This record gives sequence, C-alpha cells and structure tokens, in this order.
Amino acid sequence: MSFLIKRMTVIGVGLMGGSMALGLRERDLVGEIIGVDRRSALDAALELGVIDHAHTQAEEGVKGSSLVVVATPVSAIAPTVKSIAAHLEPDALVIDMGSVKGSIVKQCEAWMPDGVNFVGSHPIAGREHSGVRAAYGDLFDGSRTILTPSDSVSSAAVERAKQIWEAVGSSVEIMDAQYHDRVLAATSHLPHLMAYNVVNTLSDLEDDIRAEVFRYAASGFRDFTRIASSDPVMWRDICIENRDAILDILDRFKNDLEKLSKRVAEGDMDGLYGIFARSRATRARVLEENKILRGE
Amino acid sequence: MSFLIKRMTVIGVGLMGGSMALGLRERDLVGEIIGVDRRSALDAALELGVIDHAHTQAEEGVKGSSLVVVATPVSAIAPTVKSIAAHLEPDALVIDMGSVKGSIVKQCEAWMPDGVNFVGSHPIAGREHSGVRAAYGDLFDGSRTILTPSDSVSSAAVERAKQIWEAVGSSVEIMDAQYHDRVLAATSHLPHLMAYNVVNTLSDLEDDIRAEVFRYAASGFRDFTRIASSDPVMWRDICIENRDAILDILDRFKNDLEKLSKRVAEGDMDGLYGIFARSRATRARVLEENKILRGE
Ligand SMILES: NC(=O)c1ccc[n+]([C@@H]2O[C@H](COP(=O)([O-])OP(=O)(O)OC[C@H]3O[C@@H](n4cnc5c(N)ncnc54)[C@H](OP(=O)(O)O)[C@@H]3O)[C@@H](O)[C@H]2O)c1
Ligand SMILES: NC(=O)c1ccc[n+]([C@@H]2O[C@H](COP(=O)([O-])OP(=O)(O)OC[C@H]3O[C@@H](n4cnc5c(N)ncnc54)[C@H](OP(=O)(O)O)[C@@H]3O)[C@@H](O)[C@H]2O)c1
Repeated sequence: MSFLIKRMTVIGVGLMGGSMALGLRERDLVGEIIGVDRRSALDAALELGVIDHAHTQAEEGVKGSSLVVVATPVSAIAPTVKSIAAHLEPDALVIDMGSVKGSIVKQCEAWMPDGVNFVGSHPIAGREHSGVRAAYGDLFDGSRTILTPSDSVSSAAVERAKQIWEAVGSSVEIMDAQYHDRVLAATSHLPHLMAYNVVNTLSDLEDDIRAEVFRYAASGFRDFTRIASSDPVMWRDICIENRDAILDILDRFKNDLEKLSKRVAEGDMDGLYGIFARSRATRARVLEENKILRGE
Repeated sequence: MSFLIKRMTVIGVGLMGGSMALGLRERDLVGEIIGVDRRSALDAALELGVIDHAHTQAEEGVKGSSLVVVATPVSAIAPTVKSIAAHLEPDALVIDMGSVKGSIVKQCEAWMPDGVNFVGSHPIAGREHSGVRAAYGDLFDGSRTILTPSDSVSSAAVERAKQIWEAVGSSVEIMDAQYHDRVLAATSHLPHLMAYNVVNTLSDLEDDIRAEVFRYAASGFRDFTRIASSDPVMWRDICIENRDAILDILDRFKNDLEKLSKRVAEGDMDGLYGIFARSRATRARVLEENKILRGE
C-alpha cells in the first residue's frame, strides 16, 4: 500500500495535533505516526492509537519523517521549529497550527535548510476542550484553513500543504501572514477578549448583587460567553504574539464604546437608535452574504 | 364556562402582548380580548385571532376589563398607564412587560386609583423578531418572570399577577424594582451593548480589511452577536430608562478593559493567563450552579 505520507511526526499531540493524526489515519493516508510531547500526553496518545511511536525529544522524533506538524501552543512553535531545523529530512515539509502567524512564520521560514519548507497554517476549527482525549478525525471536516506562506516558499510545498489540509476535509485559502493576524484580531480575538472581560466584570460585582446576577445568567449569557471557556494558555499566547493587531482593534472598540457611553449618558435617543439599527443591519447583511458565499 | 379572566385588554399587540393573549386564549383562560395599538397591528392581530375587538384609543379599550396588559415599548409604558388611569374598572389589575422597571413602576403605581393595582412585570423571554406575527402562545412556557411591586401594592394583586404568569407557563420571582434594573444591566444590557459595539467596530474597519473580516465571521461571530439583532427601539428605550445602572456597569467594564489592554501592551504573560483562567473558571462554576438550581 502506498500512502500520501509514509511517515509523519506530530509535535504537541493535543486537540489539534491529535486530530490531524487521526484525520489522516482514518482516511488511510499515513503509514507511521511519531508523536512528540511530554510523557503523559504521549502515553494517552499511544493508548488511543493516535500515534505509533513516541519521543520526548523533538530532534529525535523528526528523523525519517517527510511531514512534521507542529501543534504546540503558539508560544512554543518558533522555539520548537528552531530546535528541529537541523534535524529535518532533506525534502521535509513542516506545517504548524498556530492561531497567530506574522512573526512565527517569518522566523520559521528563515530557519529552514535548503529544500525544506515551512508552510504556516491556521485551521479555523476547534472545540471547548483541549488535549488529545478531545481529538477526533473529523475535526477539520468542513472547516477552512488559512495558509500564510511568503513568496520565498516553494509553490510545490504550498501545494503539498494544501493537499494535506484538503485530505482531512478542510478548504484552503492563502493569505498574507500579517494580514491574517489583522483579520483574526477583528473576527476572533476581539470577541473572545470581550466575552472574557464581560465575565470578569460580572464576577467583580459586590456580593449583594453578584449571586443574583449569575442566577439570571441564562441562555443569552451562555451563548455570549461560550467563547470565554477556551484554553487560557492559548489566549495568553495569542495576546502576546498578536499584540499590535489586538491593541489596534481594542483601541477602535474603546473609541466606539466611548461614543456609546456618551449617548447613554446624554440620553441621546436618535444617536442610540442609530447605533443599534446600524449594527443590526450590518449583522443581517453579513450573515446573508456569507450564506450566498457558502452557496446556501 | 367561567374564565380566569373574563375580559382583558392588551395595549401594544406585538410579540409580547400578542403572546400573552395567545397564551391565555390557548389555555381557555380568557373570555374576551381587546387589543389597543395602531391600525395596522390591530388588523393583523384580528386576522390572526389574537384579539376579538380592536381600539386605537387606550382610554376606550380598557373599559370593562379586569386585566390590562401594557406591552408597548418601554418609553410608552408610563405615558400609556397615565392616560388610562382614570378609565380603569374599580378592581382592575394592570401589568406591564417592560425590560426596565425602576422609575416606570414607581410612577405607574402612584397613578393607580384606589382599589386598582399596577404590578410591574418583566418576563425573561423573547425572540429575534418582533411584532404580532412573531407572537405565539408558548413564548413564556418555561421562562422566568420577575415581578417588582413596591410594598404599597396589595398582596392580593401580586398573587393575581403571579397566577396569570404561571398560567402561561412562567415561574415567578419577586424583586425590588431598582435591584432588578441593576441585575439586568449586568446580565442582559451589558452583553447586548458589547455585541452591538463589536459589530459596529468591525463595520468601521477600512475597506481593505472589512470584507475579509466579515467573510471570516463564521459561527463564533454568529453566536456572539446574535443578541445584536434585537429591536433597536427596545434597546434605545432600555438605555434611556436604565441609564444609571447601565453607566455604572459600563464603567466597571471599561476599567477591566483598561487592565486587559495594559497587560496586552506590556506582554504580561502571567497577568493575561490569570484573567483568562479566572474568567473560564467563573463561567464554568456559574453554569454548574445554575444547573443545580434548575434541578438538572
Ligand atoms: N483549540 C483551538 O480551538 C485551536 C484552533 C486553531 C488553532 N489552534 C492552535 O493549535 C495549537 C494547539 O492547540 P490545541 O488546542 O491542540 O492545544 P492542546 O490540546 O493543549 O495541545 C497542545 C499540546 O502541545 C503540548 N506541548 C506544549 N509545549 C510543547 C513543546 N514545547 N513541545 C511539544 N509539545 C508541547 C501540550 O502538552 P501540555 O498540555 O503537557 O503542555 C499539549 O499536549 C495552538 O498553537 C493553537 O493556537 C487551536
Ligand atoms: N422582545 C423581547 O425580547 C422582550 C423581552 C422582555 C420584555 N420585553 C418588553 O416587552 C415590551 C414589548 O416588546 P415587544 O418585543 O413585544 O415589541 P413589539 O413586538 O414591537 O410590540 C410593541 C407593540 O406596541 C405598539 N405600540 C407602540 N407604541 C404604542 C402606544 N403608545 N400605544 C399602543 N401601542 C403601542 C407597537 O406598534 P408599532 O410597531 O406600530 O410601534 C407594537 O405593535 C417592551 O416594553 C419590551 O421592553 C420585550
């Protein structure tokens, strides 16, 4: 039997790395899977059949692999790639999963030896729980993945990365890495930070009211704050790595919030109506356009 | 046949008023229903069988009714109640539906003639669409309704109001009106305003990025901003009527947002982790406690 990938290494066998391993395995696209992580994660991954062999040293684990998937938290991606660079097979492809791309991609591309390519990847997929036990082979099915290679990456490598993502059911789009970070700051990072902030504001309320507030925290609260249940390590790393784009969108948000507060303070009926009507119309239009885009 | 309510009047036959009428009617609890609204809403309500008779003048419409339900937008509740006060039957009960209670309840209670009672009510129920065509008899089924009578309201009237809400499937809690407004500012008004604000911030982005941002506005955006599709008139009125409690919670939110921004700007890893971990833990605890409260 000939596989799309004879041997691959997954570094960071958690939700995302584990799901990529399972996704390829369940589709019979990979021969052998090596996992690199800490001992406890590796034991679980072996037990679940997500990987075939385990290493705690990335330098060792990448030997003989034509595909290396770096699925560690964002803060560990660049150090990991740096440490494996000299140990990669001559024609290996390295992809990551990080939610932030700009500086990571720039550094990782530069560290690649001749003939080896790094293709920055960000799958727009996930779930509330992390770790390998939450991994499943269809996580990427129906998702979109953004690839952010610079011009210096070989087009064959980009094509190969695309093939791998498509093989696990994702549709692929190419985007500039910096631009990706600005887009994600707005669509994903801003809403997440606001959901986290709302929850924290409520938990700082005085005792006399906090209990009652949370008693009324019904389904609206649950939906609105669902995204505030994501992994704190991931969001810490995203804030560190995408600092500038996040600060920019936070400034815009704060300016708009000042205007809104002012209108509330002044009792400006027309101004308030305008803000809400515009927002509702925008949301309706966007969802409609996206439906058309998705061909629904 | 003897009804719980022989004859009732609904002023403002929209989503909420229409649903109360249908809820009582479908349970065979009401004899005759008079609707008061503008002509077009009344025609629709008659056609749908939500009401039996229509009036455009509230003073006329309340004659002979033992129950009057004021389900207009918040800004029209007090003026409406004032105008009908002198025309109410000697032992009538008046309830409203307003999302804000404090000053409305105080004024409306004071305007009631001897023997007539106003019991401020806020059903925690709703849907994205408004108007009588969106009304349905089970809207309140399984919901909670907060009653906010002051001590001057007769306990028999409060009991009667409770009976009516329970009859349409809602469970009832009693709360001080000012306290209600503070609780709702935190649980409902703050998240709604933040969702509106996020959408507006995104629509103000430069052309080069806005289109892409909205293209990636996938399911996370849809959930997070669902509440930004509510009726702009309702939210305008809520901001006007609950100004002080809203300004207070906005100030707290802004203080927390400043701290968060500062930690992002400083790259404070531990501080950021702390914010996200605390928020996630709070949310999980709250949802767990609410499950236990609901007996799940
Ligand atoms: N979850 C999402 O929704 C989502 C969506 C899109 C992209 N991503 C990206 O996907 C990546 C992985 O996220 P995830 O959700 O899969 O997290 P996860 O479930 O926590 O998995 C990460 C794994 O990497 C391990 N790890 C940490 N540092 C490592 C290192 N230096 N060397 C090797 N392994 C290391 C972790 O072990 P320990 O737990 O023992 O530290 C863990 O097993 C992140 O870069 C994230 O930004 C996530
Ligand atoms: N929707 C919710 O989620 C929700 C939840 C809890 C509480 N509430 C409260 O319920 C009340 C009604 O909201 P709704 O969602 O039912 O709104 P709605 O569907 O727009 O219904 C309000 C109705 O009142 C009519 N109206 C406006 N001014 C009037 C006046 N002066 N006299 C008589 N009728 C008048 C409106 O007519 P026009 O459309 O022609 O103006 C409309 O038919 C509000 O106080 C709101 O705060 C709503």
